[in-house]
Amino acid sequence: MEQTFLQSVTYDNGTLYILDQTLLPAVTEFLEITKVEDAWDAIKQLKVRGAPAIGIAAAYGLVLAANKAPEVDFSSFYKNFKENLEYLASSRPTAVNLFWALQRMDERALAEKDQPVALIKKKLEEEAHQIRKEDEEVCRMIGIHGLALLKDGMGVLTHCNAGGIATARYGTALAPFYLAKEKGWELKVYADETRPLLQGARLTAWELQQAGIDVTLITDSMAAMIMQKGMAEAVFVGCDRVAANGDTANKIGTYGLALLAKAHNIPFYVAAPTSTIDMKTESGDAIPIEMRGSEEITHGFGKNTAPDGVKVFNPAFDVTPAELITAIITEKGIIQGNYSEELKKLFHS
Amino acid sequence: MEQTFLQSVTYDNGTLYILDQTLLPAVTEFLEITKVEDAWDAIKQLKVRGAPAIGIAAAYGLVLAANKAPEVDFSSFYKNFKENLEYLASSRPTAVNLFWALQRMDERALAEKDQPVALIKKKLEEEAHQIRKEDEEVCRMIGIHGLALLKDGMGVLTHCNAGGIATARYGTALAPFYLAKEKGWELKVYADETRPLLQGARLTAWELQQAGIDVTLITDSMAAMIMQKGMAEAVFVGCDRVAANGDTANKIGTYGLALLAKAHNIPFYVAAPTSTIDMKTESGDAIPIEMRGSEEITHGFGKNTAPDGVKVFNPAFDVTPAELITAIITEKGIIQGNYSEELKKLFHS
Repeated sequence: MEQTFLQSVTYDNGTLYILDQTLLPAVTEFLEITKVEDAWDAIKQLKVRGAPAIGIAAAYGLVLAANKAPEVDFSSFYKNFKENLEYLASSRPTAVNLFWALQRMDERALAEKDQPVALIKKKLEEEAHQIRKEDEEVCRMIGIHGLALLKDGMGVLTHCNAGGIATARYGTALAPFYLAKEKGWELKVYADETRPLLQGARLTAWELQQAGIDVTLITDSMAAMIMQKGMAEAVFVGCDRVAANGDTANKIGTYGLALLAKAHNIPFYVAAPTSTIDMKTESGDAIPIEMRGSEEITHGFGKNTAPDGVKVFNPAFDVTPAELITAIITEKGIIQGNYSEELKKLFHS
Repeated sequence: MEQTFLQSVTYDNGTLYILDQTLLPAVTEFLEITKVEDAWDAIKQLKVRGAPAIGIAAAYGLVLAANKAPEVDFSSFYKNFKENLEYLASSRPTAVNLFWALQRMDERALAEKDQPVALIKKKLEEEAHQIRKEDEEVCRMIGIHGLALLKDGMGVLTHCNAGGIATARYGTALAPFYLAKEKGWELKVYADETRPLLQGARLTAWELQQAGIDVTLITDSMAAMIMQKGMAEAVFVGCDRVAANGDTANKIGTYGLALLAKAHNIPFYVAAPTSTIDMKTESGDAIPIEMRGSEEITHGFGKNTAPDGVKVFNPAFDVTPAELITAIITEKGIIQGNYSEELKKLFHS
């Protein structure tokens, strides 16, 4: 089976293939995993990252374990299955998608409990494929809707990595760029390096380069000049959480980009699978912002680049007010206007 | 003689003291230089940086050489002097302040040519002191004028290093902060790390920390959030060149900060010694922007953080249009309003 950079987690004939993201961008290497312990390790060691990709890897990890179980009665099979499920769940205790994917696998196992174990194994493999396929479909639909906002030859700017390697395929903010590429369009993408953790430099620039998309790396501080010179005509970003009023939490630096886009009168788009829209969070004020350690800034490049003991402010995210967002691109379509009303409609349609 | 971080280049009794900026922030070390060759080396190796500081170091380097010359007739003294002058001028061939300072020393030598050589040596030492003193006075006056824009307890943001170690003392954009400190005011300064070369992290955070000023290091992408949260109430930056209409070239990232300041309705100040105001440059469009190598971004600090061969856009400066600048702080006073008219008046008063 051929691995493509566009699919960071795949499974074929008893082997789970995971793109080792810890080696990027220096080395492109796919792990070939046949044991659940190695799947656990890949998740634990962040070799696979991005909420959807982690969920998919865990589901396939469970398939690897199940396939090795003796084909006896359901109850002993299920006991073994649950042990492996709990084991995988322990790899990244705060990853919501991990639990969600494992729970879907559990429900499938229980739903098939009257079938012979050999068949249950096949059904579990089917379920894992289904999880992967659904995520790919969500991303592809975001890409298709986002494509309507692009045109051939356009210059666009993105921040952090809302890319294919964090999902089953295509990514979220980057999905329209891949779809444009499939259509034969030539975009000119500017990727913010995204300090402090440099996901833009290490991951976005890498995956777009692999896909043959014209990508130029800049520091975060250059985005304003890129807009001033007319080099970027739109901004596409992903998100960590969208509140019910449209306020959006995303990687630190996103809010500043939204203001710069407004100042230059260019559109600012947020790509958001409906799974990231949290109708229980009223507005951005209610989104907790994770504060991270100072060493990400002071020792970012393997070398101390700041004086010892200097105070550091290091929020992982910022909140962009809804009024700065031109449109939210979901797998169900593009949301614009009064987000409080439009998002409500989205979930009731 | 006691060295203070506030004075990166000083001279006392035959010894030139230079703060070795290449070792910052890890090590604070003053070079003790008694030979012109070591002064040349300190300039060449960027141990001293910042246009004014380089000029001062070169002037003192020439003093070291002159003091060692035999006290014979003027013409053999002057021949030796000129050789050393040319030698020092070769250390950084593009540094305008270097030539300017050396030329002042040359003019002084010629003006004193009828004096005994022993006295000429004293006059040259005087001239070097004078160059240093004048720069310190310019910076101090910028600090005094800038102080009027501050108040006790205020939060301020700065970018890059327009600080004391680049000048005789006090710096330009940082001068008001030092004067505030002398007055007993407590400011809260946020320093952008300033990618790609991290002058904010390595130099500004260091020198403010040394001075006991409350400084917090952030990545460039956090400035917008700092303003959103009301943590910064004003922005102070230095400049590389101010055009006749007030457009200002400064370290990349400055233009974005000016837009963010405007969006948050906070003032944006440029500290500019009149020597950096170029009335022959009509507007920002005429200021050439130096483009630098990709490795500054891809190999920031000894480690490759981007894929091989990725395209990079790396302008060293950007241009902030005059209309985004609340005021320009010069040693002669604060300029506001119609910069084209006000700057003209400044040079005719």
